[in-house]
Amino acid sequence: MSLIQEKVDQAIEILKEQDIDLWLTFVRETSGVRDPVLDFLIGGNDLTWHSAIIFTKKGEKIFIVGNLEKDAIARMNVYSEIIGYDKSIKEILRETILRLDPEQIAVNTSRNNVHADGLTHSMYEELWETLAGTLYADRIVGAEPVINALRGRKTQAELALIQKAVEITDEIYKKTFAFIKVGMTEIEIANYMHGLMKEYGVSYAWSAENNPAVNAGPDKAIGHTGPTDIRIEPGQVIHFDFGVKYQGYCSDIQRVAYVLREGETEAPPEVQRGFITIRTAIEQSRGAMKAGVTGNSIDVISREVVTDSGYPEYMYALGHQLGRVAHDGGALLGPQWEKYGDSPKQKLEVGQVFTIEPGLAVPNYGYIGLEEDVVLTDRGALYIGDPQREIVLIKG
Amino acid sequence: MSLIQEKVDQAIEILKEQDIDLWLTFVRETSGVRDPVLDFLIGGNDLTWHSAIIFTKKGEKIFIVGNLEKDAIARMNVYSEIIGYDKSIKEILRETILRLDPEQIAVNTSRNNVHADGLTHSMYEELWETLAGTLYADRIVGAEPVINALRGRKTQAELALIQKAVEITDEIYKKTFAFIKVGMTEIEIANYMHGLMKEYGVSYAWSAENNPAVNAGPDKAIGHTGPTDIRIEPGQVIHFDFGVKYQGYCSDIQRVAYVLREGETEAPPEVQRGFITIRTAIEQSRGAMKAGVTGNSIDVISREVVTDSGYPEYMYALGHQLGRVAHDGGALLGPQWEKYGDSPKQKLEVGQVFTIEPGLAVPNYGYIGLEEDVVLTDRGALYIGDPQREIVLIKG
Repeated sequence: MSLIQEKVDQAIEILKEQDIDLWLTFVRETSGVRDPVLDFLIGGNDLTWHSAIIFTKKGEKIFIVGNLEKDAIARMNVYSEIIGYDKSIKEILRETILRLDPEQIAVNTSRNNVHADGLTHSMYEELWETLAGTLYADRIVGAEPVINALRGRKTQAELALIQKAVEITDEIYKKTFAFIKVGMTEIEIANYMHGLMKEYGVSYAWSAENNPAVNAGPDKAIGHTGPTDIRIEPGQVIHFDFGVKYQGYCSDIQRVAYVLREGETEAPPEVQRGFITIRTAIEQSRGAMKAGVTGNSIDVISREVVTDSGYPEYMYALGHQLGRVAHDGGALLGPQWEKYGDSPKQKLEVGQVFTIEPGLAVPNYGYIGLEEDVVLTDRGALYIGDPQREIVLIKG
Repeated sequence: MSLIQEKVDQAIEILKEQDIDLWLTFVRETSGVRDPVLDFLIGGNDLTWHSAIIFTKKGEKIFIVGNLEKDAIARMNVYSEIIGYDKSIKEILRETILRLDPEQIAVNTSRNNVHADGLTHSMYEELWETLAGTLYADRIVGAEPVINALRGRKTQAELALIQKAVEITDEIYKKTFAFIKVGMTEIEIANYMHGLMKEYGVSYAWSAENNPAVNAGPDKAIGHTGPTDIRIEPGQVIHFDFGVKYQGYCSDIQRVAYVLREGETEAPPEVQRGFITIRTAIEQSRGAMKAGVTGNSIDVISREVVTDSGYPEYMYALGHQLGRVAHDGGALLGPQWEKYGDSPKQKLEVGQVFTIEPGLAVPNYGYIGLEEDVVLTDRGALYIGDPQREIVLIKG
């Protein structure tokens, strides 16, 4: 079974479970705005004209599409009914919804999850007008719970791809640590990693400008900034944030190295203390993760480990979901800040993949941030790949 | 001056010209839904949290962004004021709009142009709530005219990139025609072209599955379908649709070849007649293009050449704009079909780049569709690159 068939079947199961009659993905020209959920429903295909993808809890899988693209959809062997049109989708869409007579029409609009929010305002208005004067205009609801479940619950095939992405990331990190020498710039190191990505045939989990982030020493602003001309020097902590995309699925991993000064054989105590604090924060949070708890309850644990150790609070969420995008949506291991909406209050589910990524600055040395990828199972959260257990030491 | 500086300065000029006080691009996590206009405002950068990009006709260029991404925006050297935040954008956005006191707030929502329609429904609601209780909620208008002008009017730097994309496309076509042999499949030919794309360091103007389209002979359904296992045989018309992206700018070109049968030295009369009809349709439409006429008036010319010659009407628009995407929005050389909205009624402007792409099927031989890229100047529409003037003949 193809990945798309697997996810489409899962979507029908989710509609049954959530008792939603109909889920409608309503899109047009995907080279403009591409509804993020299309990755699961049509893979890498594009759509040029207005198209409507309809799933019902009874199991119908209906695709209304411009006639010139009918064959491309048919060749997927996923949809039970494919309806083509030339000039206007409106009549056909209205008739189809009238025929299906749903109690709810779930559409892709969401405050909390950007990856469940593919419906533009003008397309929403157009849908509303299409259904105006029928019973159904008032039955439009948000599909966020459907999409959260679909994106969050990884199938075995999806997990295998994430695992592979993580393995490749780990190999590139290892080669990079062997490559780094004093005097190199952050940009040179990033270029080397980009070269390895080509060799491994992977693309970027987020934009190339900031991927990898390479932050050498205490003067570099941390955050989503790219590598600079800052040179590697003894006594620096070097912090990395790096993720690849393998066959559509992402890794997202942070690592930390220290450049030894003359005579040093290990990192200074304050650097080690920072590293151990972050490792502890990760392990304590990971140990508490299980289905049914909120992401916020996990975020709190790690945040307290860091602040109780006397470091300032990191101003971002502990961890996000990971899948077809690096920052996937739905339940978030995050604080209850307004910008995160309801995501930190959502409950964890088996099959979800999360990052765990606390961080802190060690004055005069640099930033210590680790990021591990974990999958939630019946037996708790398991690491995907090996976590970083010790600071990487680089010869000065 | 960077391409982004050039386009941002152009945006301010457009606001003055259209007498719009303020243009707001309101976005969040661009790995989910990426407002298409961001390519012009931040290039390849991504944004993680809610961000607001504000231009005023007085010349202000304000960027409100999550603190961790402030530096990346500052390094662009484009924005006059960059405001960072940690927990919520709402207060700052409201205060900023109150301070600027605009008569109109143009936002990225558009029925006609998908590339001017980057604001999702839930973000629209969020903006509305942010401004609720102020004078400004009722001053929200669509930014379609602003974005149409910005996307349509190519700067010299943009034109140079499109020119280069077209040149590379042409070279790949030439090499491909020399490569094709009887017995090869459409897929083998497409794979060869993908290999050349790598050599030239270009990416896809639209999704790789259907790029190139390779349609050999009369049995292949035309439209946005990818290459298949159909084999090249003597007596086939082979139709191609292919476009590359060079440094962010696209080409989009269709070509036609004929595979000679034993004893043939040219294509059969009915194939030649089809080719000449399409060439004539292109030339007559191109000759009529000038600033101030509607796209529909151009579409009509080509459509009539084809139908007056006794062929059925092609069920798509004669041509679309071309730029950062292959199917760019705004004025369209198209028929007044409902699905095209107002685009065919919009007037052509100097600096716009269009495709011209009529087509027809020749029974028993295959599809004849040519697509040329042209730029509208004071002296009319000029070809970018050489148009196809004769059928390419392939030895059988």
